[in-house]
Amino acid sequence: MKKREEIKPYIRKVQYYETDQMGFVHHSNYIRWFEEARCDFMEQMGMGYGEMEKAGIICPVLSVQCEYRLSVYFQDTVEIRLAVRSYNGVKLTISYTITDQATGKVHTRGETSHCFLDRNGKILSLKKASPGFHQMFAEGLSWNTQDGQ
Amino acid sequence: MKKREEIKPYIRKVQYYETDQMGFVHHSNYIRWFEEARCDFMEQMGMGYGEMEKAGIICPVLSVQCEYRLSVYFQDTVEIRLAVRSYNGVKLTISYTITDQATGKVHTRGETSHCFLDRNGKILSLKKASPGFHQMFAEGLSWNTQDGQ
Amino acid sequence: MKKREEIKPYIRKVQYYETDQMGFVHHSNYIRWFEEARCDFMEQMGMGYGEMEKAGIICPVLSVQCEYRLSVYFQDTVEIRLAVRSYNGVKLTISYTITDQATGKVHTRGETSHCFLDRNGKILSLKKASPGFHQMFAEGLSWNTQDGQ
Amino acid sequence: MKKREEIKPYIRKVQYYETDQMGFVHHSNYIRWFEEARCDFMEQMGMGYGEMEKAGIICPVLSVQCEYRLSVYFQDTVEIRLAVRSYNGVKLTISYTITDQATGKVHTRGETSHCFLDRNGKILSLKKASPGFHQMFAEGLSWNTQDGQ
Repeated sequence: MKKREEIKPYIRKVQYYETDQMGFVHHSNYIRWFEEARCDFMEQMGMGYGEMEKAGIICPVLSVQCEYRLSVYFQDTVEIRLAVRSYNGVKLTISYTITDQATGKVHTRGETSHCFLDRNGKILSLKKASPGFHQMFAEGLSWNTQDGQ
Repeated sequence: MKKREEIKPYIRKVQYYETDQMGFVHHSNYIRWFEEARCDFMEQMGMGYGEMEKAGIICPVLSVQCEYRLSVYFQDTVEIRLAVRSYNGVKLTISYTITDQATGKVHTRGETSHCFLDRNGKILSLKKASPGFHQMFAEGLSWNTQDGQ
Repeated sequence: MKKREEIKPYIRKVQYYETDQMGFVHHSNYIRWFEEARCDFMEQMGMGYGEMEKAGIICPVLSVQCEYRLSVYFQDTVEIRLAVRSYNGVKLTISYTITDQATGKVHTRGETSHCFLDRNGKILSLKKASPGFHQMFAEGLSWNTQDGQ
Repeated sequence: MKKREEIKPYIRKVQYYETDQMGFVHHSNYIRWFEEARCDFMEQMGMGYGEMEKAGIICPVLSVQCEYRLSVYFQDTVEIRLAVRSYNGVKLTISYTITDQATGKVHTRGETSHCFLDRNGKILSLKKASPGFHQMFAEGLSWNTQDGQ
């Protein structure tokens, strides 16, 4: 498992089909970028979300929240940083910050919360169902609480 | 302008491309359905969003929030009801409830907030910029506050 | 099973998130509308695609082709008509015509081809695997060849 | 302007929201990846599509065609190579090959054709409207015809 300082922000270039006729990125796409950043974090930690599903565990979204401060345009490159806000083995909350790579300005902030289910839709304690994935999120949480963010 | 009781919920059938490999609708799509319901409401009120843009006013999303209670599946039909939560001529907040048409159960709740801009990105008072659109949202707000929801 | 004259064209209203910064519908979305029209046809025929999957049969796309003649804009309503171009129990080809509801003009034409697989990815003869679904496509093909289209 | 051997294939990691309930990438998304690869090629050549639009020229899609040979799955990484098939200053055709990065197998092939319009929708000769962009596509075409592909 990686150390906090080894985790890189997720870099994303804006695609044309992500814009709408207002001339910038449609607001629904940031929700998808959060998912991309979440999956990238898990892969960087050595435990991809695909592997979680192969172990019979799905991690659906319980809620999402997003605040749009500055628009993002076609060909812009953004950096997405995430933090594990809370995690108790059953419920997970992750926050996201999207900054423009060129200016460093914060464009978007958001949060998603998740639970863990088996393939029959039964709620799982990840701690019991998969100690490895549990440790990953617990580790992520510890980084966050260390510096009192 | 229509009366409250004349406004119909927005009916939406789930499409195959809206599912993901979890086997139900991807969470980002509900955000798009909120937009569909919002545009449908404006059209039912006789003032489509397209007409607002033709008048030089855009209405970007400032924030979105969504709570997923029950999954929605391919071929399901949902009903989306919205309410104007707050509106002061400059900022607008709308809430959404997605129910399954067959069961009447609430599957999703959400909220979006918006401002109004001219084509140069300058914030507008809708009350001044377009009394007609202003009246529509003010009317919507009055329905909501009437019954203390 | 319905008669040819009972099948209605699929009606679709253009959504805002389907536009891009060119100011009209992004070309990838027509491919999704073809899918919508295909599923709608199957449901009108009394045999929804969801039921096919429940019977353990999937119908992936082998190829797609689309010709864009006239743009489609936000708030436009289009009608999509399809025809079974060829079907031999193993491979299916469907063609699509998208017309503007207001003008009747043809905006887009396209075609998709499909095979049938079981859940392990093995190619199926639909004739053997599901006589009901087989009959539906055979019926659709007969409509098409009748009038030498 | 770059030389042929300096152009890198476009690398794309498959995202979760691009899958559907069949368990692999929805066929409409490959059409979007073609666009990504096309824009990436233009940027590598030093003339991004965004710059073309800023110069008042849009390049809509006239037709698209795609052949799906092998499915692509979540977390797979693909490489997309393109070639300018034909270009005469007014119409452009580009072909695409999507291979799996791990196996080198071809999963998808496709083609798009395009014209050039000004902001009023009038057809342009790119040769006249923008010699720089014209030269880029002419250069791309020369690579392709050199080796008789």
